[in-house]
Amino acid sequence: MRKVALVGAGVSKFGVRKASYRDLIWEAGKACFDAVPGVKPRDVEGLVVGSVMPERTAFQSHISSLAAEALGIRPGALSARTEHMCASGTVGIRYAYAFIAAGLADLVMVLGVEKLNQPSGDEAILNMGTGVDREWEAAFGLTAPPCFALAAQRHMAEYGTTEEQLALVGVKNHTHASKNPNAHFGKGATLDQVLCSRMISTPLRLFMCSPITDGAAAVVLASEDRARDLTDRPVWIRGTGQALDGFQLTSLHEDYAHWPALRRAAGAAYRMAGVTAADVDVAEVHDCFAIAELIAYEELGFCAKGEAGPFVAAGRSDYGGDVVVNPRGGLIGCGHPLGATGVAQAAEIFVQLRNEAGARQVPDAALGLTHNNSGMGEHVVMLYGREAA
Amino acid sequence: MRKVALVGAGVSKFGVRKASYRDLIWEAGKACFDAVPGVKPRDVEGLVVGSVMPERTAFQSHISSLAAEALGIRPGALSARTEHMCASGTVGIRYAYAFIAAGLADLVMVLGVEKLNQPSGDEAILNMGTGVDREWEAAFGLTAPPCFALAAQRHMAEYGTTEEQLALVGVKNHTHASKNPNAHFGKGATLDQVLCSRMISTPLRLFMCSPITDGAAAVVLASEDRARDLTDRPVWIRGTGQALDGFQLTSLHEDYAHWPALRRAAGAAYRMAGVTAADVDVAEVHDCFAIAELIAYEELGFCAKGEAGPFVAAGRSDYGGDVVVNPRGGLIGCGHPLGATGVAQAAEIFVQLRNEAGARQVPDAALGLTHNNSGMGEHVVMLYGREAA
Repeated sequence: MRKVALVGAGVSKFGVRKASYRDLIWEAGKACFDAVPGVKPRDVEGLVVGSVMPERTAFQSHISSLAAEALGIRPGALSARTEHMCASGTVGIRYAYAFIAAGLADLVMVLGVEKLNQPSGDEAILNMGTGVDREWEAAFGLTAPPCFALAAQRHMAEYGTTEEQLALVGVKNHTHASKNPNAHFGKGATLDQVLCSRMISTPLRLFMCSPITDGAAAVVLASEDRARDLTDRPVWIRGTGQALDGFQLTSLHEDYAHWPALRRAAGAAYRMAGVTAADVDVAEVHDCFAIAELIAYEELGFCAKGEAGPFVAAGRSDYGGDVVVNPRGGLIGCGHPLGATGVAQAAEIFVQLRNEAGARQVPDAALGLTHNNSGMGEHVVMLYGREAA
Repeated sequence: MRKVALVGAGVSKFGVRKASYRDLIWEAGKACFDAVPGVKPRDVEGLVVGSVMPERTAFQSHISSLAAEALGIRPGALSARTEHMCASGTVGIRYAYAFIAAGLADLVMVLGVEKLNQPSGDEAILNMGTGVDREWEAAFGLTAPPCFALAAQRHMAEYGTTEEQLALVGVKNHTHASKNPNAHFGKGATLDQVLCSRMISTPLRLFMCSPITDGAAAVVLASEDRARDLTDRPVWIRGTGQALDGFQLTSLHEDYAHWPALRRAAGAAYRMAGVTAADVDVAEVHDCFAIAELIAYEELGFCAKGEAGPFVAAGRSDYGGDVVVNPRGGLIGCGHPLGATGVAQAAEIFVQLRNEAGARQVPDAALGLTHNNSGMGEHVVMLYGREAA
């Protein structure tokens, strides 16, 4: 299997954007091409686009073709859109990664994009219901917030996790976002603000939830030879894992505070990379809700099971701690334009591992991790390294 | 790069089905598992689902998770939906192929599914507009039928292709479909019937067009070792190619009777397989409209440029001819449930190369090809062989 590296990355401004679906593609694609002067659109052999519901939000399928045309790319090796709800961008990266690793292509762009506010997020909240089982769950109101609220309640009951500890995830990620000029939110948040924000689904309050965000992100993946030609600081894909326990909540056999599929996905990635959780310097974790970040600490192995609350409260997931989690602001602070999220996470790891992250730089970051869930039972993990192996 | 083979295949009944999206997944998945007794759902390491617009037709995203749960699969290596309009199923096969070829998985199911009639096809015809550029083409009525009608008019003007020659594609494929119990149409068609059918977009008449069809199909891909364990007649992936010239019609720089992207995609596949067009025994070609099959003969190299009309008229693309094209009835006779089509084509090549195609068996078929377009400027080609290399 051939080695594969990221050689470029770019993101659009995230937020409630006065921009069309195509505008967002342009913005992230241009930012990415600007970041790799050695790569012109016509050099790119393939384009994979992660996007969840443009059929509903832009009345548009055939997305990779739309994006290729918008960016002047003429794929000669692969072209596809990937969808896997909140993990759509990362499964796109995995498509490009496998193609290059197998020797079927050398230079592939992966772009993630979602336009949810059109112009308001009201319809987006309805559309978000397409991500869960329509017939058995969404139809009865069991959408994402109540699902993750159940996980939070269980974690509190089983491990004594507190509302304040949940809130500290919101504080950290909103504070990180204030140093990220592309983030949806830029004002930071205090503990009081998070704890006094509106209740969405008990115990999850507004500032513990990711917002309805428009945005796009792009990265360029290259084979080893091409990567070394293009940059002296490629960011290598070191490992990957994906696992599923179940789609419907009723299929999850552990209690909701345990996410064994994430443990398996992370284990696969760590084994492939020959590293452990302790080696990770910076992690982009799928904090769709604050409880998700806490449980991820545990299942990713950053702390023992049940200890995520004290872990965040002690600042161990912040600058100066064991591992900096969500330096760009996470989904809570930076926003969650579904298909864009996984790609934006990779773009953040790219700049962090190249020491180009400016005000939010994690000192001497050498190994980075990204994680997406697309529900409590479905997880995907990537590991990126400054060194090839 | 590791060798990869198909080891099982199954299809649902195609047609205007009184079945839900999930029912269709069940039907094709079960048929596929029944065809490989050595593979249980829990053995499958990955699931890729090709589907275009379940967000519109079933209010459902997150499709591979829905399908995994419906079929009892718990993916431990990969899970994703692919979308590339009419080529969605084949880009799904390519995802699984790359994963196995790279050594990232050993046993992956690829399923294609589309539920378009709900219950009638009226809304589907509207939804089909999502496949072309909404802002610049669909909004002005330039959907698929007029696009391909322009290609037909140009081919007629440039090469003297006749309405009767176009009609003979419809006759052949409806006749083939009559031997396929899973086809949308089972009654065959005479030349008179095709030539007297309703005009859709001049010169394309109803029986020269693919219908609005519900259906699903599934195949199982395996690494070489697993394939040889599971069957003594694996069907090997020998080559693949994908190329794009443009999404909007205005981006196509050749006249519409020339599809250079198809020539490049086919060339890449032939080179990879070390074969030529003359070696192909059976081909599943993307006859969304009769003209598409004619132009495909030429760009795939089955005949010289401009000679597709006489080629079909002489029976050279039928049983006893140079190459049997669309033995299951093609998109015109079997139907075109978008995401399912590419997978159903692979399933047909699978049974043909194993000599299991019954009444529609192509004698001694050893090398098979599948082709999808997703517009005149975008093409994907796969080559499958009875022998590994």
